Amino acid sequence: MSRPTPPGTLWLVPTPLDFGCEPLAPLTDVLPEATLQRAAQLTHWICENAKSCRAYLKRVAEHLPLAAPLQEQQITELPHAVHKKGDHAGGFDARPLLAPLLQGHDLGLVSEAGMPAVADPGSAVVRAAHDAGARVVPLVGPVSLLLALAASGLNGQNFAFIGYLPQDAAERVKRIHQLEALALKHGQTQVFIETPYRNTALWSALLQHLQPGTRLACASGLTLAQARVHCRPVSAWRKAHDGAVPRLPTVFAIGA
Amino acid sequence: MSRPTPPGTLWLVPTPLDFGCEPLAPLTDVLPEATLQRAAQLTHWICENAKSCRAYLKRVAEHLPLAAPLQEQQITELPHAVHKKGDHAGGFDARPLLAPLLQGHDLGLVSEAGMPAVADPGSAVVRAAHDAGARVVPLVGPVSLLLALAASGLNGQNFAFIGYLPQDAAERVKRIHQLEALALKHGQTQVFIETPYRNTALWSALLQHLQPGTRLACASGLTLAQARVHCRPVSAWRKAHDGAVPRLPTVFAIGA
Repeated sequence: MSRPTPPGTLWLVPTPLDFGCEPLAPLTDVLPEATLQRAAQLTHWICENAKSCRAYLKRVAEHLPLAAPLQEQQITELPHAVHKKGDHAGGFDARPLLAPLLQGHDLGLVSEAGMPAVADPGSAVVRAAHDAGARVVPLVGPVSLLLALAASGLNGQNFAFIGYLPQDAAERVKRIHQLEALALKHGQTQVFIETPYRNTALWSALLQHLQPGTRLACASGLTLAQARVHCRPVSAWRKAHDGAVPRLPTVFAIGA
Repeated sequence: MSRPTPPGTLWLVPTPLDFGCEPLAPLTDVLPEATLQRAAQLTHWICENAKSCRAYLKRVAEHLPLAAPLQEQQITELPHAVHKKGDHAGGFDARPLLAPLLQGHDLGLVSEAGMPAVADPGSAVVRAAHDAGARVVPLVGPVSLLLALAASGLNGQNFAFIGYLPQDAAERVKRIHQLEALALKHGQTQVFIETPYRNTALWSALLQHLQPGTRLACASGLTLAQARVHCRPVSAWRKAHDGAVPRLPTVFAIGA
């Protein structure tokens, strides 16, 4: 009887934060050499969107030769249901996606922007890899929520990332008050994101409903030429002339 | 009357995660070219420890020429009280440290390992820079808690980083139960760290007091050759033969 093939390694491969932005930033601004090298060596991928995965590999190929030409790369998309609802809550079985891994191939996991499985789907794939006894290795790259937190000057020793706020206006106000209470009473910085075209609506709600002394950070276009991070008390934001939030990927944070 | 000099930029400069570890990893494994270039250009620094700041700059100098020789770099340490208590809670005035920034010099902020002001002191410096109207720019590098979270397969769309658990055994058990409740009831992954020589005591407490079905992640030596990430239900950890936590920088996480 032959021994079963040991599984390959699941590599978590970060991508730049310029998805959908112009102009694109150089990959070497945000990805270390070791991350680029690993991305160039892989030939099997799980991603949110095959087209953007190929666009990423094209950019990698400008720096290093790929182990297999683009048309021979095996690229599998996460199901669309997972994009919307997230994949941590169970109900999604990622094991079939891991077939190449179980056959001994190394496998790359990528998202549209930043670190896969953080503020993005992918955690079900990582979980299934652990359950299969595969090695999981995260590579270094940009993570917008962490860059925003560091640059906010808010408490980075106790913080929560809570994803998106509700879209319904009344629900959103309720949630804003909840988050403010957590930030002020427990000193836990609350970090959240919004889809760029809803930035303005969220921002108006924040300025209207937060207390004047609460500190509010807004970090837009991180790692891009047009990057901008400001953190001020709400009272100062209300008087500021530069307060409009651009239609760029933006991270928000509330702190004491 | 002459116009006042506009302030310089505060750069948040990440460092490798191999502080106190052997062997050191190559800087290019974890720092993008743009981060190395910026570090080489700066001549004024705020840091936790001047000796390790100089050691970092020596490593940078192996890749790129520094704008000023080591002995001419202006390196200022954060006060020791800030290291211990953190600096977010007020009471520490970072403005005097910003003198070079206000004179128009760019200033780099570094911690011992990873991203300054995240799971490390430095946020008071960032806050003071915002209050002075200076530009704040975070550079990309490794952040152990984020790498651990991504590689855990636990929910990365809703999580909290809560720093250290209490050292007192009874207090620690109480906190473990609180964190488990947050993870299980609200689906919020709870991420925390420990000083390496206390890893074993913390690990025993976790295995003893968590419920068998709770998922527990342990990520040690991230970005190093000896890196290891596992995430299993507590019941599986109790039976595992590879469960000892090494005396390396380790990130822990609890999830549903």
